[in-house]
Amino acid sequence: MPELRKDPVIGRWIIISTERQKRPHDFSINHNNIPVNDFRSDCPFCPGNEKMTPPEVLAYRDDGEKDGRGWRIRIVSNKYPALDTDGELKKRGMGIYDIINGVGAHDVVIETPVHNATFGVLDREQIESYLWALRERMVALMNDSRLQYIIVFKNHGSVAGATLEHPHSQIIALPIVPKRVQEEIAGCRTYYEMKERCIFCDIMNQEEFDNRRIVLDTERFMVITPFASRLPYELWIIPKRHIASFPDTDLDEIKELSSIFKETFGRLEAVLQNPPYNMMLHTAPCQTKKLPYYHWHIELIPKLGNVAGFEWGTGFYINPVSPEDAAEHLRSATIKVRCI
Amino acid sequence: MPELRKDPVIGRWIIISTERQKRPHDFSINHNNIPVNDFRSDCPFCPGNEKMTPPEVLAYRDDGEKDGRGWRIRIVSNKYPALDTDGELKKRGMGIYDIINGVGAHDVVIETPVHNATFGVLDREQIESYLWALRERMVALMNDSRLQYIIVFKNHGSVAGATLEHPHSQIIALPIVPKRVQEEIAGCRTYYEMKERCIFCDIMNQEEFDNRRIVLDTERFMVITPFASRLPYELWIIPKRHIASFPDTDLDEIKELSSIFKETFGRLEAVLQNPPYNMMLHTAPCQTKKLPYYHWHIELIPKLGNVAGFEWGTGFYINPVSPEDAAEHLRSATIKVRCI
Repeated sequence: MPELRKDPVIGRWIIISTERQKRPHDFSINHNNIPVNDFRSDCPFCPGNEKMTPPEVLAYRDDGEKDGRGWRIRIVSNKYPALDTDGELKKRGMGIYDIINGVGAHDVVIETPVHNATFGVLDREQIESYLWALRERMVALMNDSRLQYIIVFKNHGSVAGATLEHPHSQIIALPIVPKRVQEEIAGCRTYYEMKERCIFCDIMNQEEFDNRRIVLDTERFMVITPFASRLPYELWIIPKRHIASFPDTDLDEIKELSSIFKETFGRLEAVLQNPPYNMMLHTAPCQTKKLPYYHWHIELIPKLGNVAGFEWGTGFYINPVSPEDAAEHLRSATIKVRCI
Repeated sequence: MPELRKDPVIGRWIIISTERQKRPHDFSINHNNIPVNDFRSDCPFCPGNEKMTPPEVLAYRDDGEKDGRGWRIRIVSNKYPALDTDGELKKRGMGIYDIINGVGAHDVVIETPVHNATFGVLDREQIESYLWALRERMVALMNDSRLQYIIVFKNHGSVAGATLEHPHSQIIALPIVPKRVQEEIAGCRTYYEMKERCIFCDIMNQEEFDNRRIVLDTERFMVITPFASRLPYELWIIPKRHIASFPDTDLDEIKELSSIFKETFGRLEAVLQNPPYNMMLHTAPCQTKKLPYYHWHIELIPKLGNVAGFEWGTGFYINPVSPEDAAEHLRSATIKVRCI
């Protein structure tokens, strides 16, 4: 019989529908997510084409000059930004409606000079640079008192919303805290007030006890398929140290997280043949980064087929793969190393 | 400059990003949403193939026998139901997690015998039968005390999640009230407590005053592009009579709503060339169908390109088309009548 499960943080119910159970190779996967070539002359994110993007706001380079070759990581403004960096924050009403002018930032993080790389094949050191660059840029943005929240996300593959092939993430800094974030924080606070404990810390304890949804368990991180997974092969990467804000991570954590990325994505790429996916960093709001009851983490959702039909419209999900099965497939994966 | 707008019901902020403004013909639309033929011998929803589906739970027919030809509307159980009709409701805990066994119903509503029909080309009378069948089935399901909420939705086109071409909707009856519905109800209640008025009634007043987001305005219904539209060409169909539950609509309303469907979809199909879409009926929970502060309505979201990349994961939307422009395009559309 199918099972309804409740996400303990958000309070969202989902259905694990065993009738529709699918094995990894049953998904109609779009295999066009990995380009054939490691360089494209018309790609604005490939080395030598730096002038095709807006200027760098941050870069790590071994040699060369600003907006030239020699970089390992580049962060530039989005060419079509959803928000403007300049201007004063203005809030106004229009009858019953509320409006804020679009002040904020919209950056693109170019994760590697290699056009067809993935987190599964990149060097651990390169991933460390990527994570460190995210952290550095977030710290800089958090000094802007107009900004309330920073969303870091990655769309991989066109069906997941990526418009360019070259590996990149995005950073959007907002003058408001999104509702979804407020809800998560509210869920954490309610639990904390009831139990005097963090719900994410309790989730990790529960997962260790159940031992059926853990994909990786290291000194500083745990990777799980969450109990109320919305979609097949949803993954959460949770730090073991209880801190609310990603920019408060230390160097040891960033180093270990880079290994976790390589291993997690390596397994995902092996089991689901380089699926398209969305990755979201969940971190505390800029102005309350020390929240005692919040716990930063990363959510990773492969996009397999068009399974997400009406779900985002209703907030209700039917998942044809149990997280226990997904974890088992990911744990037993043999990672094939692709050379780049 | 881009603009952040707040949905007055749910409290969700979205960005209207004029930098990325698109005209209707700029969308990379999947034109394969309308089949060429009006009949397919292998389609389980086409006349003559009634034995390919589970038995009817409701049908309107001019002649013929149960599960045979001659029907105008058929409602059958989903062949791969996400929930089971039989069984007692059991709630249990598992450590910190909550589970309910999957009791409920999962129906398919076959909207017409014609394989390649759309709401824009169907006879008004056929749409009336469809709406009346939804109402009748919902009334029957609401008598089951195990059920708390009925979701009615339609996925049109494969990118919107439809797995079969033949026009059909789905009904899912749940033993819980989904979080998204709870949030909407909570937003309505908060507004009602503050103003002693219904927020949807106030939205219609505001829209009449602004007069920039109305697509259709008739005696009993208003069709608008909502102020904080999540995605391009999002539409809300709102009844003018303040009632919480769709099954409390009367015959005059159903008749007028069928005209509204034909006209709204006709315009949408003309402007966006038969786009894929998701349609969701928002109605009061089964056990509290007389809620004084709630107002049933229909939400309709075309799925244009892969614009919904990370949005459903973060609850945050960037919309490249202002609802004012979308309404203008829809108002000025010339409806081309396609013969079926």
